Formats: sequence, structure tokens, C-alpha cells
Amino acid sequence: MIVILKPNAPQDKVQTLIHQLESQRLTVHFSQGVNSTLLGLVGDTASVDIDHLLADDAVADVKRISEPYKLANRRFHPLDTTISVEGREIGPKTFQVIAGPCSVESQEQLANVAQSVKESGAGFLRGGAFKPRTSPYSFQGLEEKGIELLLEAKRLTGLPIVTEIMSDSQIDEFQQVDIIQVGARNMQNFRLLKALGHLNKPILLKRGLSNTIEEWLMSAEYIMAGGNEQIILCERGIRTFETALRNNLDLSAVPLVKRLSHLPIIIDPSHAAGMAWMVQPLARAAIAAGADGLMVEVHNNPKKALCDGAQSLNPEEFHLLMEDVKRRVAFEGREM
Amino acid sequence: MIVILKPNAPQDKVQTLIHQLESQRLTVHFSQGVNSTLLGLVGDTASVDIDHLLADDAVADVKRISEPYKLANRRFHPLDTTISVEGREIGPKTFQVIAGPCSVESQEQLANVAQSVKESGAGFLRGGAFKPRTSPYSFQGLEEKGIELLLEAKRLTGLPIVTEIMSDSQIDEFQQVDIIQVGARNMQNFRLLKALGHLNKPILLKRGLSNTIEEWLMSAEYIMAGGNEQIILCERGIRTFETALRNNLDLSAVPLVKRLSHLPIIIDPSHAAGMAWMVQPLARAAIAAGADGLMVEVHNNPKKALCDGAQSLNPEEFHLLMEDVKRRVAFEGREM
Amino acid sequence: MIVILKPNAPQDKVQTLIHQLESQRLTVHFSQGVNSTLLGLVGDTASVDIDHLLADDAVADVKRISEPYKLANRRFHPLDTTISVEGREIGPKTFQVIAGPCSVESQEQLANVAQSVKESGAGFLRGGAFKPRTSPYSFQGLEEKGIELLLEAKRLTGLPIVTEIMSDSQIDEFQQVDIIQVGARNMQNFRLLKALGHLNKPILLKRGLSNTIEEWLMSAEYIMAGGNEQIILCERGIRTFETALRNNLDLSAVPLVKRLSHLPIIIDPSHAAGMAWMVQPLARAAIAAGADGLMVEVHNNPKKALCDGAQSLNPEEFHLLMEDVKRRVAFEGREM
Amino acid sequence: MIVILKPNAPQDKVQTLIHQLESQRLTVHFSQGVNSTLLGLVGDTASVDIDHLLADDAVADVKRISEPYKLANRRFHPLDTTISVEGREIGPKTFQVIAGPCSVESQEQLANVAQSVKESGAGFLRGGAFKPRTSPYSFQGLEEKGIELLLEAKRLTGLPIVTEIMSDSQIDEFQQVDIIQVGARNMQNFRLLKALGHLNKPILLKRGLSNTIEEWLMSAEYIMAGGNEQIILCERGIRTFETALRNNLDLSAVPLVKRLSHLPIIIDPSHAAGMAWMVQPLARAAIAAGADGLMVEVHNNPKKALCDGAQSLNPEEFHLLMEDVKRRVAFEGREM
Repeated sequence: MIVILKPNAPQDKVQTLIHQLESQRLTVHFSQGVNSTLLGLVGDTASVDIDHLLADDAVADVKRISEPYKLANRRFHPLDTTISVEGREIGPKTFQVIAGPCSVESQEQLANVAQSVKESGAGFLRGGAFKPRTSPYSFQGLEEKGIELLLEAKRLTGLPIVTEIMSDSQIDEFQQVDIIQVGARNMQNFRLLKALGHLNKPILLKRGLSNTIEEWLMSAEYIMAGGNEQIILCERGIRTFETALRNNLDLSAVPLVKRLSHLPIIIDPSHAAGMAWMVQPLARAAIAAGADGLMVEVHNNPKKALCDGAQSLNPEEFHLLMEDVKRRVAFEGREM
Repeated sequence: MIVILKPNAPQDKVQTLIHQLESQRLTVHFSQGVNSTLLGLVGDTASVDIDHLLADDAVADVKRISEPYKLANRRFHPLDTTISVEGREIGPKTFQVIAGPCSVESQEQLANVAQSVKESGAGFLRGGAFKPRTSPYSFQGLEEKGIELLLEAKRLTGLPIVTEIMSDSQIDEFQQVDIIQVGARNMQNFRLLKALGHLNKPILLKRGLSNTIEEWLMSAEYIMAGGNEQIILCERGIRTFETALRNNLDLSAVPLVKRLSHLPIIIDPSHAAGMAWMVQPLARAAIAAGADGLMVEVHNNPKKALCDGAQSLNPEEFHLLMEDVKRRVAFEGREM
Repeated sequence: MIVILKPNAPQDKVQTLIHQLESQRLTVHFSQGVNSTLLGLVGDTASVDIDHLLADDAVADVKRISEPYKLANRRFHPLDTTISVEGREIGPKTFQVIAGPCSVESQEQLANVAQSVKESGAGFLRGGAFKPRTSPYSFQGLEEKGIELLLEAKRLTGLPIVTEIMSDSQIDEFQQVDIIQVGARNMQNFRLLKALGHLNKPILLKRGLSNTIEEWLMSAEYIMAGGNEQIILCERGIRTFETALRNNLDLSAVPLVKRLSHLPIIIDPSHAAGMAWMVQPLARAAIAAGADGLMVEVHNNPKKALCDGAQSLNPEEFHLLMEDVKRRVAFEGREM
Repeated sequence: MIVILKPNAPQDKVQTLIHQLESQRLTVHFSQGVNSTLLGLVGDTASVDIDHLLADDAVADVKRISEPYKLANRRFHPLDTTISVEGREIGPKTFQVIAGPCSVESQEQLANVAQSVKESGAGFLRGGAFKPRTSPYSFQGLEEKGIELLLEAKRLTGLPIVTEIMSDSQIDEFQQVDIIQVGARNMQNFRLLKALGHLNKPILLKRGLSNTIEEWLMSAEYIMAGGNEQIILCERGIRTFETALRNNLDLSAVPLVKRLSHLPIIIDPSHAAGMAWMVQPLARAAIAAGADGLMVEVHNNPKKALCDGAQSLNPEEFHLLMEDVKRRVAFEGREM
């Protein structure tokens, strides 16, 4: 971390600042230039509060050199993390597909979809019980009943289940869920992240619509700092100026996250574009870019879906997608 | 709402769709063109799920004409809403200033700041007890103790207090708070919004960093749909490509919200820019643009602040700001 | 196109508007609802000026249904366009790689790079003669001399050349260039687009940093409207809130452009990320997403490059990239 | 400027780099830490090419401390610049209003508008002769004839004229224009900027839709580097994720530009929002934020305007706006 001092910062204020930094167990390198004076900070700078420094009278600016996250940082954990869920692995050697309806609607619907995505090769069943909807007048999910139906579908098919939590007040209801999903709008719901840090359960952490990759890894760090290091990152499209698609899938995030972190990363091509016909090309690109898996919406009857029908594949379309996915995953030398 | 049918949509699918829409108590106007056929929907279209329509085989696209919010909509509530808090009014005739430290740090600090902002003319005391911080390693607030200190400062000064809630699991701890703040990162924390809808207490709803004005008003609608119509909107800067400032204050939001909604709107110039020297010009612009108030960070010793020191004014700076604000508010014909 | 009338638009103003629209050879469908009245316009709506309509007293809003471009529109040209340059084809059956240095620096450098990219399998040589640089103090290119060196390298290797034009005042100097590139910052330099429309020469049209896909296709339309339909689109990353990479490659643009237009589209992974190590994963994703080619920066000595060295591959790295590219292009069933 | 070296950069490469930097007349401060080694560069770092440095094998990252612009930088020119045009001053003591139609349409229209904006208090006449339009099928302006009509209106009213240039190939046709405008889409048309640098004539430089303030000042620097230091900056709204308005006016740009540069800055509230009813609140906010003037679209008959009618005021509306503007400008202690 580099602290750039104000050109005319008084000597005594600078000394006070240096003492204060040293008291935080940082080594301070002083570098006097003609126009500017710098302090180079060495040590555990992830714990240094930049805002605090910026408020100091003597400080003009502060630049980070190393990342503010530690547990999620590949620098300190060079090997890829692999997460095991009911015998299935999510990590560098495998490619996992999580599929299912946007929202759980009925026992029959879910059983139907679960059976068919399993036959097509999906390894996990997804389904929304509690749904974050922009409008209070839209269908909000079957709630507790939805989780029961997911567990029933798991008993039927053996597929581990993934479903979204919306608040730390719901932790108890998610005890039997295999992978708890944190949605894009909750990526910086810090109370929720802290609560999840105390569980021993994989967390699927979606990137917020307008969050940087650094903020995303800091949210992973929140959960990891609590003791739960089983994080699966999921990129699902970012918000830009473009209006032709609902979101813009950021595939650069895959190699970038792989370089910065040891955590696995999967792609959700359904939410990214918001249109079923875009799922296949984006899934292909995700596999080639090095993603560790996909999350795909499948509905037995998309046009009757209670949410996000336009982006859902029907079981036949999903079957065709998976034939293509398998061929491509084999080409990349991964297992499914 | 206009439904654009696919060019070759089969007659029977279109008839099924029309029946389905009519069963939702909508009147459907059929309009046949050479290249495209449209359905004009009349009725309570705020309850129509666009996703649902888009998934229909016969539908090419859907365009909204009227806004998806009702209770927050000026169309149905032409008069400006005024919110009363302990005898103070937030609405079109007044201009209210909420001031105080980013985070509550100690009894002494808070009493000190509260007394001084009151003397300078602030009508409300703000202070963070639970702090949403990007890093798990940053100061997270005094939590319950912080709320106690705010209530003590209120007893001392008579200033009603404003502080931020982070989860529906905290509702009980906020019973004595005068105005509950929902932070930018929680603007779409729908569990929280629903819980706040059941209170009888003003809610200060900050706009999310990357949320549209429509999404913001939909979040207000969530709270209002639960029965609590006391919403104060607060614009605090949006996220754009520009990196010179922390956020870009969107002052267009003031006249736009005033046109679309009857709810009061205030501006937070401290968070918008993240730099103390920007508070005055942005505050001036906010007053001129028609805002109903300001929220300003004041710290007795900004360089020792445990968060956001760089954007905090000290009491003397705040006093000077308020002298300027008073002159300008009088020019606009409002009361302080 | 749908015109939404104001709720209380006077009868005579509406009649005047309808007559005016009909005089533009449009058929007007009138649709009266309870809360809103619509006009559906049928005909050559690409020529209708929305701004003009929006300024009418009787009009509340206007929504486009069909795209504002015609010549670039797949709707009217269902078959993919293939562009031939010196016996090489750019289109759906082939995959073309354009490679070379960011800027032409010397005869020796260019000959060296040209020879080596040819050996690795590139089909075209790129190199900047006129360089658009953010700073007036940066190297601005060898200008006319640069074009001479490119032509010399073409004579040496047989590779057709691609280089960037910056103004309509330069047209004469580009007569012998095989493919004229329009850079991202000039995508809406309409004088330049018009001038290029009068040539009989392929144009490589890069997408602007913050331009929508519709605006991009409208810029293609500008050139095509002048008579030159040989357009190759090139996506090179868009500007978003993310700061970890220089730009965010928008790979959704590939399937989206393919659906909306018949024009070929290639990807520039070098400019997108601004970092050499990102070229390979982005190139892989581009091939899988269905792109028709790549544009890659190669420099014989990237660390001495006069511009964009950080994103350039050296000849050995490019050779390895091409081995991988060839394998993947074959997998997709395309020819190189 | 700070160069952060790679952790394991070999000694000889670092030495080579240091020599190379010193040969550019920079003083290099070496600072060795435990995890990272830094070079602090002192001297004319505006001329240092960051890309070049980033491509060096030994370099991990580069951070600028001082701005890359010199002539436009307040650091080196502490006093505000005032620009004189035909006896009128644009600078810190005055507030200038430039008004007129989006495009020049006829002698009668222009004379009419010019006379009326003059009577209302405008100091300059604007009008587009060459119009940058997104669609090749929209009205493109009267071109040369438009400039003639502007000059005629100037003879009639005495108002100096402002009109937009689109290419360096048009310089000759703009010899008699008082202030040459560079539109948002041409902010980085570097050939044009260079050509304007050789004139002795004020340039109104609009900010690009998605350009940072640093890029904007670098474009001013381009013109100034050629010898023409008469630059008036004009903010006209930036492109964000918000779709409710055409652009988002960035009023933070006013105080920020004033801090970074000595150049005057005006606001265009007409283009910013794209809606006539937003002009007044945005103009009020601009005056309060410290802008040096306004640019406002006025049309004698907005609903018949050949472009941008929706955002144009009619002469009566403009008159009312100006009454309000005068009162506010007086409040700020400026002259009109």
C-alpha cells in the first residue's frame, strides 16, 4: 500500500501518521521526491482502512498494491479449491451442471423437471423457494413449502439441491439444503454473509449486477472469515448501458477470478441474457473460457412458468444442450 | 401495456392468450397490422407479469406504457406526501437537514456532534450503529450499543434519530429509532422491505448504486404494499464508468422522482462524492434542483473517524455549510 | 412503431398528427383504450424520426417495434454475408485471424512480425500507421510512412493488410489498403462513415466503447447506405463500472449480432482486456460463441512496443495460441 | 508516478529499466519492501507512456500520482481562464447563455429564434449546420447553407455564433464561426482536435457520453498542445444504466473540473435529459453548482423541429427560464 502525502504536509503530522501506522505492525518506507513524498506500507495491509488514511490531513491519496482479501486470494492459496457435495466434486477437474426451474411451483412440476434434467446429465437440482422479485405484486415463491418439495425431489432423484436464501433470519429453514445460493441482489447483504460463515455448507455466491470482481471476492472473504471456506462463485451477467439483453455476461470474469482466487466459478447463462436462445452460445463460451460449471433454468412448460419463463429451456431443449455440453467438456479434458 | 405478437403466431394460440389475459380482468384491444399484430391491455397492468407474457409462444415483445408501481405513483396520488417525525415535517414546504457521524463511536463523540449539529440548525441526528462494510476486517459498528448511544443523544438534544438497519432479523432492536434507514446495498433486500412494511414508522430508502429510478420506486412500493406509506427517498450517487469520484450524484433524480412520485426525496452529498470538499457544491445544486432535504456526515474529528472520514465535515465546516444552506433555502421559499 | 397519445390530447391535434403520418406513406392503426390511446404505424418506420414525434403536443411516448436499420438487418437479408479479400473469405464457413503489431514501428519490425504471423497461420496483417492516442504526448504512429511499410510487408508475405483510418480527410492515402479499420472512438464519426460508403473496399467497423449494438448496426448502415456493403464488425470490449480490466469483452454480442444482422463479426481479445495473458481464454470463448475471426496484437518485442505492449503476444506466444485456435476451429467445423 | 516491480524481477532487468527511465530525464527513487519493490518517478511524468512501462518484464503495475495533462491543469495555471468572444467574456465573473435551435432549418426560423433569444438575454446564438445523427435516414443539416444563415443571423442580431464541426476536412468552412463546437461523439476525434489546435478561435469541447473527466481534459490538452488554449468545456450528460432519461447530467463534473483545471465549464441541460421540462431544474442546479454558463435549445415551433424537438423550449418558455436564471445568477454574484 502506498500513501501519497500532500505536498506541504507539516513534518509533525507526517511523523504522527508514521507512528500510527507502525503501531498497526506495518513497516513504513519513506520516499522523498521533488514534487511528492510517499510512504510504502509493508505488512498486513488487508486490515488497513483506506478511508481512515484518506481522512488524515497529511494524506493526498492512497493506492493499494495487494488485494484486500486474504482467504480467497490465490497468492496465499495457490492450489485450486475443490468442493465436495454428496460425492460430487466442483473444482478444476470436473464440470458440473446445476439445472431446474426458476421457481418451485408444484410437486408434480418439480419431480417432472428433476427426473428429466437428471436423465440429461445434470448433477444438481436448482429451484427457487423464496424468490426475490422486483415487484411486490409478482409471485414470491412457495417459501417453506418449496424447500419441502425440493427435498422430496432429492429423495426421488438423488440430486443434491441448490436454492436461494434471502435473509439471515431464514438460516434454520435451510439446514437440509445442500448448497445455499446467495442471489445477486444480496451479494453485499453482510448480515447474511456473516451468518453463512458459521455454517458448514457450500455457498453459491452470485455476483451482484454492478459489483466489481474485487467486491465479489470480498463478499466471499466475509463468509470465509467466519470459518466456512466452501464458496462457489457464480457469474450471471452485469448491468451496463446496453439494453438489448437483460444483462451482459462477463466471461472475462472466469480467467480473472481463476488468476486472483482459488475458488471455483460457474456461469449462469439463463439469467445473463434473459432469453432461452442465448443459453447455448453463452454456455459454449463459458466452457471454453474455463468455467467449472453451469447453472441453467429448465421448466417443463416455460410459457406457463410463474417466473422467468422467457429464459427457461424446456426438457427437450435442455437435453440437446447437454449433448453439446458433454462433447465440449470432453474436448476440454474435464469430467462430467 | 402493449403485447407485440410474433408475425406468424397461430390463430388458436393468440385466442388462448387473449382469453387468459381477459381472465385477469384486463380489457384486450386487438390491432392487426401488415407486419405486426398488437394487443393493447387496459386495466390493472401493474399486476401483469411481463416475464410470463414473454414466455408465451405467440408473443414477440411486451412494452409497458404505465409504470409498474401504484401506491408510490403520483398519477394516483397527485399531492405531495409530507412525513411528520416528532413535530418536524419532511415534505414540499420544508427543507430538512439530517447530520451526524458515519458511525457512532462513543458516548462523548456522539453527544459532542449532536449538540453541535443541532446548534448549526440540523433537524435530525444520524449515526451508524450497524455498518455495512465491504471488508470483514473493517470496523463493523458498535451495534446494539450504538443504538443506545443514539437514544441517549436524542434525550440530550431532542433531535429525532436516523440509523441504518441491515436485516429483517433486527426489527426489534429498531423499535425506538425515529427513522429507519435502508442502505443502498439493501435497496432490493426484499425480506427487509416486507418487514418494514408492517411498521408504523418512517423509512429512509436509499437508492442502490446501480438501480434505476423505476426499481427504486418499486422498492418503495414493497414497503407501501405492506401498509407503511411513510417513505423518504434518498439519492446518494450512482455507479458509472467514472473513477475520479466514488459515485456520481444523480441530481436529475430529484425532478424525475418528483414527477413520477409523490414521495419526498433528499440528497446525501457526503456519500455521493466521498470527499468533504464536494459537499458544499453538491448541496447547493441539490437545493436548487428541488430536493426536500440533505443528509450530511459530520464528525468531531474526521481524521480519527472509524469510517468514511474523508467525506465528513468537522463541526466548523458544517456550521459554515449550514449558513449557506439557510440562505439558499430561504431563496427557494422553503422553511427550515 | 407505436405512438402513445397523451390522455387528454385534443381530437384535432390527433387528427393532424394522423394526417401527417399518413403523408409519410405510413398506415396508421388507431386503438382507443380507457386510459390510453395508441397509434400503430405500419410501413417504412426506419425513416420515421422519433424525436420529431416526441415533440408533438399530442404524443406521450413512442416505442419502436422493428429495428431502425434495413441494409444491415437479417430480417431483410436472411443469408450470412461473406466478404472476399484477395481470395480469402470472411464469413460463416471460415475463421480468419488478423495479426500484427499495435503500431508499425520500422521496416524490420514489421517484416519480422509479418513473416512470423504468416507462418503461424494468420490470414491478414494488421498494423497501426495513424494511432488514436488519449495523450497528445504519446507516440502517434509513423503515419504515411507506416502505410508504405505495410504495403511492403504485404509484397513480402502476400498477407492482405488492415489498418486504421482516422478521418475522411485521409481517404486518398488508404487507396491501397485491403481492409480499412474504423476504430472504436470513430464508430460515430459520421463524416468518415459516409466517406467510406463511397468506396468499394471492406471496412472493419469496431464497436465503440459505450455504444449499443443498435447504434453499432446503425453505423454499419451509414456505410451501407452509401453503397458499400462490405462490413466486418469487430467487438473489442465495452466500458463498464469494472476497473480490473481495461474493458469488458461483450461476447453476448456475437450471437446477438448474428441474430440481428447478416454481417460477419470478429473479436479483438487484445484490446478487450489489455493484458496478454487474457488473450487465450477470450479467444477460446470467442471461437465457441460463434465468432468469424480474431484480431490479435503480436509484437516481436512487446516490452519495447511503442504502444500497447502489455497486451501484445510475442511471436512464440502467438504460435502457441494459433495451435490451440486451429484445433478449436476444426472442432467447430470451420476452415482456416 | 509509481512503478511496482514484480516480486521476483531479476536485478539486471530492474537496472536496465532504471537506466531507461533516467534517460527520459526522470529521477528514480528505489524503495525495497518485503513483498514488493517500488520505483518512484519524479519529473515530467505526463510524457511517460504507461503502456510502455506495463509491457516491461520487470513491472507488475504502474500508478499515476499526478495528472497526465499539463496545459489544462490548474496545478500549473492556478488562475481561472477567461475567454473573450466579440466583447463577451466566458469565465468566473460572468454567466453566459448560448441559445438557439438544434438545427438551422431556414432563414426565417433562425432569424426568428435569434431575435427572441437575444431579447430574453442570451449572449450567443447556437444552431447546427452539420448534424451528427445516429441514423443515415435522419435530417443531416443544411450544411454550408446553415453556416451562411448563422452568419446572416449574427449580422441581424449581433450575437456571436456557435456551431458544430464534424471533421478536420471542414476547417475552412468554419473560418467565420465565432466558437467552434466539438460534439460529444467527436471528443476523441484526435485528427479534428489537432486541426483545431492550430486555429486562434475558441473551441467548445463537449464531454463524450462515456468519457472520464481525465480523458476530457486530455482532449482539451490535445487542442492546447497545438497552441490554441481557448477551450470552453461543456458537460451534456453521460451514459449510465438508467433508461428513464436519455443521459444523466453529471453535475459533480462542475466542481471537479474547477478543481482540476482552470478552464471554464458550461452545462447543456437540453441534451442531458432530452426532455424540455427537465431544462429548468437542471439549469438551476448548474448555476448553484458553479457552472460558467448554459447551452439551451430553443425552437420557434418545437413540434415541427427537424431534430430534438422534444428537448427544445419555445421562445416563451425560454423567456421564463431566463427570468429565473437572471435572478439566480445575481444571487450567485455573477454578471450576465
